[in-house]
Amino acid sequence: MTRTAFYADYVWYNNKIHTNTHLLVDGDTIAGIAEHPSDDFKIEKFANSAIFPGLVNTHTHLPMGLFRGMADDLPLMEWLQKHIWPAEGKWLSPEFIQAATDLAAVEMIKSGTTLSNDMYFLSDFIAESIRKSGLKGVVGVGVLDFPTKFGNNADDYITNASKLCEKYKGDELISVSLCPHAPYTVNPENYTKCVEFCAKHGLVLHTHLMEADHESADSVAKYGKTTVQIMNEVGAFDIKSIFAHCVQLNDEEIALMGEKKVSVAHCIQSNMKLANGFAPVKKMMDAGINVTIGTDGAASNNDLDMIDETRSVALVHKGVLKDATALSADTVLHMATSCGAKALAVDNTGELKKGNKADFIAVSFDSPKTTPVFNPVSHLVYSASASDVTAMYVNGKCLMKDRVILTVDEEKIKYNARAWAEKIKKG
Amino acid sequence: MTRTAFYADYVWYNNKIHTNTHLLVDGDTIAGIAEHPSDDFKIEKFANSAIFPGLVNTHTHLPMGLFRGMADDLPLMEWLQKHIWPAEGKWLSPEFIQAATDLAAVEMIKSGTTLSNDMYFLSDFIAESIRKSGLKGVVGVGVLDFPTKFGNNADDYITNASKLCEKYKGDELISVSLCPHAPYTVNPENYTKCVEFCAKHGLVLHTHLMEADHESADSVAKYGKTTVQIMNEVGAFDIKSIFAHCVQLNDEEIALMGEKKVSVAHCIQSNMKLANGFAPVKKMMDAGINVTIGTDGAASNNDLDMIDETRSVALVHKGVLKDATALSADTVLHMATSCGAKALAVDNTGELKKGNKADFIAVSFDSPKTTPVFNPVSHLVYSASASDVTAMYVNGKCLMKDRVILTVDEEKIKYNARAWAEKIKKG
Repeated sequence: MTRTAFYADYVWYNNKIHTNTHLLVDGDTIAGIAEHPSDDFKIEKFANSAIFPGLVNTHTHLPMGLFRGMADDLPLMEWLQKHIWPAEGKWLSPEFIQAATDLAAVEMIKSGTTLSNDMYFLSDFIAESIRKSGLKGVVGVGVLDFPTKFGNNADDYITNASKLCEKYKGDELISVSLCPHAPYTVNPENYTKCVEFCAKHGLVLHTHLMEADHESADSVAKYGKTTVQIMNEVGAFDIKSIFAHCVQLNDEEIALMGEKKVSVAHCIQSNMKLANGFAPVKKMMDAGINVTIGTDGAASNNDLDMIDETRSVALVHKGVLKDATALSADTVLHMATSCGAKALAVDNTGELKKGNKADFIAVSFDSPKTTPVFNPVSHLVYSASASDVTAMYVNGKCLMKDRVILTVDEEKIKYNARAWAEKIKKG
Repeated sequence: MTRTAFYADYVWYNNKIHTNTHLLVDGDTIAGIAEHPSDDFKIEKFANSAIFPGLVNTHTHLPMGLFRGMADDLPLMEWLQKHIWPAEGKWLSPEFIQAATDLAAVEMIKSGTTLSNDMYFLSDFIAESIRKSGLKGVVGVGVLDFPTKFGNNADDYITNASKLCEKYKGDELISVSLCPHAPYTVNPENYTKCVEFCAKHGLVLHTHLMEADHESADSVAKYGKTTVQIMNEVGAFDIKSIFAHCVQLNDEEIALMGEKKVSVAHCIQSNMKLANGFAPVKKMMDAGINVTIGTDGAASNNDLDMIDETRSVALVHKGVLKDATALSADTVLHMATSCGAKALAVDNTGELKKGNKADFIAVSFDSPKTTPVFNPVSHLVYSASASDVTAMYVNGKCLMKDRVILTVDEEKIKYNARAWAEKIKKG
C-alpha cells in the first residue's frame, strides 16, 4: 500500500488551516497530518500552494457542455423550448453523450471538482465516462411523464434506473440517483413511484424545484397544491433527496424544509443568467436546510467552474442582503465541499479528516492575483481561478499533476467536442 | 517600421467578430484586417484563439493588492476605518508603492487589462511602475481636506498633481488625473478647486460618488445639499470626469447625469463584497450615462481580474432586473473596452479599428471550459478566465507572449510582494 505525505504551505484539515504540515495518505484513505511524517511515507511537495478537499458540484447536466454558448441572454422558457430541447431532441445519442461527458470530466478535473451530481438521459454512458476519468459521480436517471426516445413513461425510466443501480452496486466511484425532472413535467403519482423506488433501494432523489416564479401557481392550477406541498405529501422530504434551485420558496416552505433537514443545490450563476432571481440562501441555512452549490449545466452557466460559482455565492448574497458579513469565505467553502457530500450521501468525502477518502486538490498561490497570501480560504474563494488548481487526487489516485490529466486524453476529448460542434453548426 | 499580421480564429474588429482574417498592425497602429496580408507583413498566429481589444479598468487603487485578503467579510466603514486606513497609515512609502504597483502591473498584464484608471498617493511611483511594465495608465493624484504625509491640504495635493502633469506631458503611456477622494472627505470648495484645475489642464477628474447609502443624507446634514447637487454645482459634470460606484443614485440624479453624458465606473464585485448593493446600471445606460467597468482595489475585490468582473456585471444585473436579456455579452464587452477608453479620454484605444493604437489581447479557447466554440463573445464573458489570456500588445509592443511577461521580471516582483506581506504580518 502506498503511503504518501503531501506537503503544502496551507492544509485545510479538520475544517481549519494548518501550516507547516503534511497531509498523510495511506492507500485511498487520509491517515492524518504530521509535521514530520515517519520514514515509510513518500514525500510530495506542492510549491506555494494550499490543499483543500475536492469541490462537490451538487447539480449539473454534464453532457450540456456541448451546447455551451449556443444560446445566451434569453429567458428560461424561451431558452429551453426554442433552443435546448430541440437541440437535445436532434443530437442526443450514445456517441454524443460519451463525447460530451468526457469533455465535462476533463473540465471538472481541471477546475477542482472531484464529485458531481448529474441529471440527464443515457446515464449508463455518463457513468462509464465519469468512471474512466477517475472522478466520483452520482449519476441520475431522468424521469418524465411523457415518452422520449429513452422510454415511454415513468415506469420505463425507473426501469432504466433499476438496471443502472444493479450495474454500479458497490462501485467505489459511481452511485446512482433517480431524477424526476420537475413538478411541471412529472405528476404527483409518478413522484410517488420515484420516492418509493429511492426509499427501497437507498437512492438519492434529485429533482428541480421552484426555479421559476410561475411554478407554484401553475401547480396550484393543475393539481390544487403547490409544488412544495406535493413534494412533502409524496414523501420526498423524508428520504435522501436534493432539490435544485429553490429560488422561489416562501417563509413557510423554508420552515418546513428546514424542519425536514432537506438538502438544496443552489445554482446562483444559472439562476442569474436565466433571470430567475436569488434563492433565499441565508434564510434557508438559518432554518436548517443543508444548502450546497451546483453549477447547473454548462449551457446555462456557461461552465462547470465551482471556484467561480462559489465566489459568486459569497459575493452576490452580501449584495442582496446588504450585509457584508453574510456567507463568509469559510461558509461558502463548507457549502462547496462537506455540505455537498452530505447532501449526496456519498460517505467519507467532502472533508479532509482521518479515515475519509483521499479526495483533494492542490491550489497554487503562485499567480500575481493570489500574491501575497494573508488568508488561504479567502484566496480560494475571492482570488483564485480554476486554472490555479494544479493537482487532483480521488481515492488517493492522482488524476492530474502539474495540470496534466493522467487518466484520460484531454486533447483527444477536446478534438471530439470540436468535431461535434461543427456538426451541430451545420445542423 | 515593423508590419505584423496577427491571425486568430476570431477577431473582434469594428465591433463584430470576423473569422478567417488577420489583424494588421503597422508599428504602433492598427492598419486594418485582411484575409491575405501583403508580403511585407510578418505573420503571427494565435492557435485556437480570439483577438479582442485590451480591457479597460476604470476604477482601481493599484497598490492595494499588497493588502489583498487581509480583511474580508466586513462592512465598508469598518473595513476602511479599522483595517485599511491604519494599514495605509503604517506602510505607505515609495518602496511599498513601487512593490505593490509592480505586482498590480503583472496582474493586469496576465489578465488582459491594457489601460487602468488609478486613484492613490505617491502617484509618481505608480506612474513609473506602470510605464516600466509597458501598460497604459491614467494615474490619479489623491486630494483630501485633511493633512497626510503626502500633503497638508487640498492645495498641496493639487500641487503634487501639477508636478506629475508636467512630468508626463505628451507621454505615450501615462496620463494624469486629479482625484478628490469623495464628498465625505473633500468639501465643495476644494472640489471647485479640483474642477478648475482639471478644466485648465484638460485633465480627467476621478472621484468616488454615492458608494454607500448614508452618503447623501450625510451630505445634506453637513452642507444642506446632496452629493450629486454638489458635483453639479461645482461643475464636475461639465468637464472630463468619471464617478466611481454610483450605487445609490435616485431617478432624478440619473436623469441629470444622463443629460450631462457623465461617465460612471461600475465596480460590482467591490459593491457586493462591501454590501453597498447594486448600481442601477441599466437605468443609467438608458438615461445616457456612459457606464464602464472597474475592479476597485484588490483589497475589496480581491483581484484586478476584469474578465471575472465583466462576467459578474452580465450575470448579476439579469438576476437583479429579472430580465435575461439585460446586459448581453456584447453590451458588457463594450462597457469593459470602448466605453472605458472614452470615459478616460484616452484616444485611439478601446476598440480595434483602423487608425487606433494596437492595444489588444489574444484569448485562448483551448481549455475544456471554453470548448467547443459557438459564440466567441459569449465565451469571453461567460466561460473564459484571466488565465486564458495568452498574449498582450500595447502600442504594437508585445508585453506578454505565451503567458510569459517580456517587460518586467514577474518572479522578482512576486518575491518582493511576499517579502512585504511577511513584514506586514509581523506588524
